[in-house]
Amino acid sequence: QETKIDTATKVPEATKPAEAKSEWYQKINLRGYAQVRYNRLLETNQDLQCEQCDKSWGKNGGFFLRRLRLVFSGQISNRLYFYIQPDFASSPDGSNNNFGQIRDAYFDLGLDTENEFRLRFGQSKVPYGFENMQSSQNRLPLDRNDGLNSAISNERDLGVFFYWAPKKIRERFAYLVSSGLKGSGDYGVFALGAYNGQTANKNEANNQPHIVSRFSYPIQIGKQIIEPGIQAYHGKYVVSSISTGVQAKPQNQYRDQRAAASFVLYPQPFGLQAEYNIGTGPEYNVATNTIEQTSLRGGYALASYALKFNKQLFFPFVRYHFYDGGKKFERDARTYKVKELEIGTEWQPFKNFELVTMYTISKRRFEDAARPFNDQQGNLLRIQFQFNY
Amino acid sequence: QETKIDTATKVPEATKPAEAKSEWYQKINLRGYAQVRYNRLLETNQDLQCEQCDKSWGKNGGFFLRRLRLVFSGQISNRLYFYIQPDFASSPDGSNNNFGQIRDAYFDLGLDTENEFRLRFGQSKVPYGFENMQSSQNRLPLDRNDGLNSAISNERDLGVFFYWAPKKIRERFAYLVSSGLKGSGDYGVFALGAYNGQTANKNEANNQPHIVSRFSYPIQIGKQIIEPGIQAYHGKYVVSSISTGVQAKPQNQYRDQRAAASFVLYPQPFGLQAEYNIGTGPEYNVATNTIEQTSLRGGYALASYALKFNKQLFFPFVRYHFYDGGKKFERDARTYKVKELEIGTEWQPFKNFELVTMYTISKRRFEDAARPFNDQQGNLLRIQFQFNY
Amino acid sequence: QETKIDTATKVPEATKPAEAKSEWYQKINLRGYAQVRYNRLLETNQDLQCEQCDKSWGKNGGFFLRRLRLVFSGQISNRLYFYIQPDFASSPDGSNNNFGQIRDAYFDLGLDTENEFRLRFGQSKVPYGFENMQSSQNRLPLDRNDGLNSAISNERDLGVFFYWAPKKIRERFAYLVSSGLKGSGDYGVFALGAYNGQTANKNEANNQPHIVSRFSYPIQIGKQIIEPGIQAYHGKYVVSSISTGVQAKPQNQYRDQRAAASFVLYPQPFGLQAEYNIGTGPEYNVATNTIEQTSLRGGYALASYALKFNKQLFFPFVRYHFYDGGKKFERDARTYKVKELEIGTEWQPFKNFELVTMYTISKRRFEDAARPFNDQQGNLLRIQFQFNY
Repeated sequence: QETKIDTATKVPEATKPAEAKSEWYQKINLRGYAQVRYNRLLETNQDLQCEQCDKSWGKNGGFFLRRLRLVFSGQISNRLYFYIQPDFASSPDGSNNNFGQIRDAYFDLGLDTENEFRLRFGQSKVPYGFENMQSSQNRLPLDRNDGLNSAISNERDLGVFFYWAPKKIRERFAYLVSSGLKGSGDYGVFALGAYNGQTANKNEANNQPHIVSRFSYPIQIGKQIIEPGIQAYHGKYVVSSISTGVQAKPQNQYRDQRAAASFVLYPQPFGLQAEYNIGTGPEYNVATNTIEQTSLRGGYALASYALKFNKQLFFPFVRYHFYDGGKKFERDARTYKVKELEIGTEWQPFKNFELVTMYTISKRRFEDAARPFNDQQGNLLRIQFQFNY
Repeated sequence: QETKIDTATKVPEATKPAEAKSEWYQKINLRGYAQVRYNRLLETNQDLQCEQCDKSWGKNGGFFLRRLRLVFSGQISNRLYFYIQPDFASSPDGSNNNFGQIRDAYFDLGLDTENEFRLRFGQSKVPYGFENMQSSQNRLPLDRNDGLNSAISNERDLGVFFYWAPKKIRERFAYLVSSGLKGSGDYGVFALGAYNGQTANKNEANNQPHIVSRFSYPIQIGKQIIEPGIQAYHGKYVVSSISTGVQAKPQNQYRDQRAAASFVLYPQPFGLQAEYNIGTGPEYNVATNTIEQTSLRGGYALASYALKFNKQLFFPFVRYHFYDGGKKFERDARTYKVKELEIGTEWQPFKNFELVTMYTISKRRFEDAARPFNDQQGNLLRIQFQFNY
Repeated sequence: QETKIDTATKVPEATKPAEAKSEWYQKINLRGYAQVRYNRLLETNQDLQCEQCDKSWGKNGGFFLRRLRLVFSGQISNRLYFYIQPDFASSPDGSNNNFGQIRDAYFDLGLDTENEFRLRFGQSKVPYGFENMQSSQNRLPLDRNDGLNSAISNERDLGVFFYWAPKKIRERFAYLVSSGLKGSGDYGVFALGAYNGQTANKNEANNQPHIVSRFSYPIQIGKQIIEPGIQAYHGKYVVSSISTGVQAKPQNQYRDQRAAASFVLYPQPFGLQAEYNIGTGPEYNVATNTIEQTSLRGGYALASYALKFNKQLFFPFVRYHFYDGGKKFERDARTYKVKELEIGTEWQPFKNFELVTMYTISKRRFEDAARPFNDQQGNLLRIQFQFNY
């Protein structure tokens, strides 16, 4: 699926002499994808919502443009690769929608001739969690799991990251995306980074960067490929949206630390994916009306199956995920307790179009000072039309 | 005028095998247009303004970037066409200007091999009114008529639309744009759609979609082409900007229904265009300080003439339009009574540049809780420099 | 350095028949550049900051995306050139970052066949000051000097500008950029313009445009090229951000007038650049808590040296600049007294990557109603990674 290749393609590119390409349109590539959603069918509880997942869940939701991406990228010299991805489904204020805002804007400087050692500058995904790294273009469930995704809003931050992977593994990372196996792209076998820590498109709010590290290796065993991984980060986070009357720590600053383990069996044809993380961070306490430093934990398991029928692809899947902790980037570091089961199928009639239908059985407690007792449960059918261009 | 072709060109494209185009720049096309305006010459009343038309009318207006468009589009497979058009003259708050915001972001899925039957997903023009469908790049008067344009701010909304047109008529729709006859593009002979109803780039605000339908047919009579059309929509609209103290219906929700008739005689060389619509919607009542459910009506007639002189094109035109009703998407569903006569010319010295000068004789009453008695009249010269790229 | 050519390349382009280019990607060009910064090393005073220069200076600053540009441009016909440059490191509100906002959106209409006489419509740089005209992609110090840059926030405004330069000089302007000599691009030998005057991306706020004129001529003397220039503008400026209790003139409106002299010796290999300007404008007076009409003055001198070593370029430089006056576009027309010495080097290991390290010795007094006594001094090391694509 050539439309889905991203950073992974750097390996073959870099081996060609970049100077031979003289025209801008040979050096710069443009592609993108979009997701149009509707979540209101078979809905049993319109107060069941998820701010981070999809703002059109529940009451007053309707047709929704979840993502609208244009990706400008290119290996512009033997040593420099760039990747700029604005999202045109972004809002500065939650009510004036569909402005263009950066997701990725990063620049990979190769430290050796094969670009096995790279420094990445700019805003990019923080290497924490396989599902976080994996593009939404490739993910089967409509939204990322709360457990690991609560670590970093929009999965990204601004900083400097070091990545290392041997050439052979870089080619394997590339293959795992280009073959349709729904890989994460190339975030290195080893990663080490320093970044602001207030998450994507936000100002740094203290004087210390966050530090992250990750180790992940795709192992070929016969025809099958598995990828175990571990990762951790630490830093200090400043809660920025606090309701009047809520107590918080000095400077609204909290320890922000997590560690996670990941396991992936790529779907040939049966796929399995599981991640789990523990840590500490800010979390609203309803009883005391205080944002406290608390522990958190969460994860998921996803099983999938790749079916090819008449040149069309089907990916039936089931995922269970849970999370118990705060969401630091939401109002009052909103407290969460989530248990969710999703059963669905992705259907790709041709490579430019994908339809996901997914039945969600959910139990979500999410509470802040404005909604102090808010334990919601219910079921709904969610539909996504994805277009790859 | 090849620079102005948009959805209309899909017909010839779709008949070629898309797979033969292997490079991204052969599959994706980029074009655009921009409008720079100045409205302050020969102005007799600086309190005569029009928020929806052009924010630089009247007091403190100056040079103004009315539209700045980039269009990314392409028939990326036999069955899928995409069209993404950000406008870089948009503002999230009315004072920080020239941010990039989506106008169109739609995806046409062909249901048959000729794409005569299509489903359109995403944000696109709601098929209501010929002048609303017609691109501003092609329209003669600087702004759309208040009568029909008051139906949908920015003419667009997010939803799913079904379009049908036979191949021969799709080619005729394409010709009406590419030939410079200022057609509407291909919004089908028959259209049926469901959309959020709060207008472009706004959140849905209730649990029911709007429904729209349209029938429009370009008929060739000798050398002349006429296009009669009818259309209607209905739904419930939630007024979102209400001044303190103003009374409104429960949940600020109102019936929003309209029906319109359209007639076009394309300018070969004499052109005639007329539309009229009636309906009901929210409207501010000054006497009671209440937003009421009221009836509305309005329309226009436009006469034009196409002159070719020394490879240059001239389109002298005159338009009269009027509107009596509310504008649901403005503060307090502002009440309007508009009568306006415009006399002007579009001059195209070469295909990339157009100059419109237009003398406007206007009478506009527009009142909300902040400006309860506001009946303005006056004349002014309006100038637009349009660049097609 | 072909990646850095902008308006300057129009001369050779325009002499080719534009009609021969039939594909969009031959007519429209895309390039860009990005700047990632870190300012916190060797910092002696975290209260030393500069809002206009770089919002990540000082306390709570971190990694920062200073500029992220995409440039769409092209000579789309013999008489029309367009240049659209959004910046994706812009914020509508200072806290939701990295939205795409226009810097340049201009359209050059040639009045003669050689385009020696041009009218420029839209938003573009106001021809006032060499360093203001010079692209940040080419400038050696990280930020522009306060003295001349305080004239126009983001260097740009919306209006109509007339430019004249003979063909030979247009080619020289082009050479001064393409050769890596860090020229300003082609803003004419003579410039005359009318523009709104409230600076880039802001609404006009009164009924009079600003007027600007400039004369600048690059003179070849043997191998060396010098460029002396003079420029001036006048208008009325409306201060828009005023703290409660601060006194201002009626309608918050002030005379806004400046005149400047510029001198450039291009670095072959030794370069010298100096500018100075005087004028009048609004300025906050701490003693009286009033925004007053006061005089202002400021300028800079920059010495540089171009070194080529093993195909790599080095530009060691030193700049001293000072400013005494208000910044009309900041809160309360904040009063400034700036003295700053910068010593640094730009290193270009290959054309797509530049690293600037710069040690800054600074004394900045900047005061408004919220910070009435605020005289800061200190030193710091500033680092910029620039990527040209």
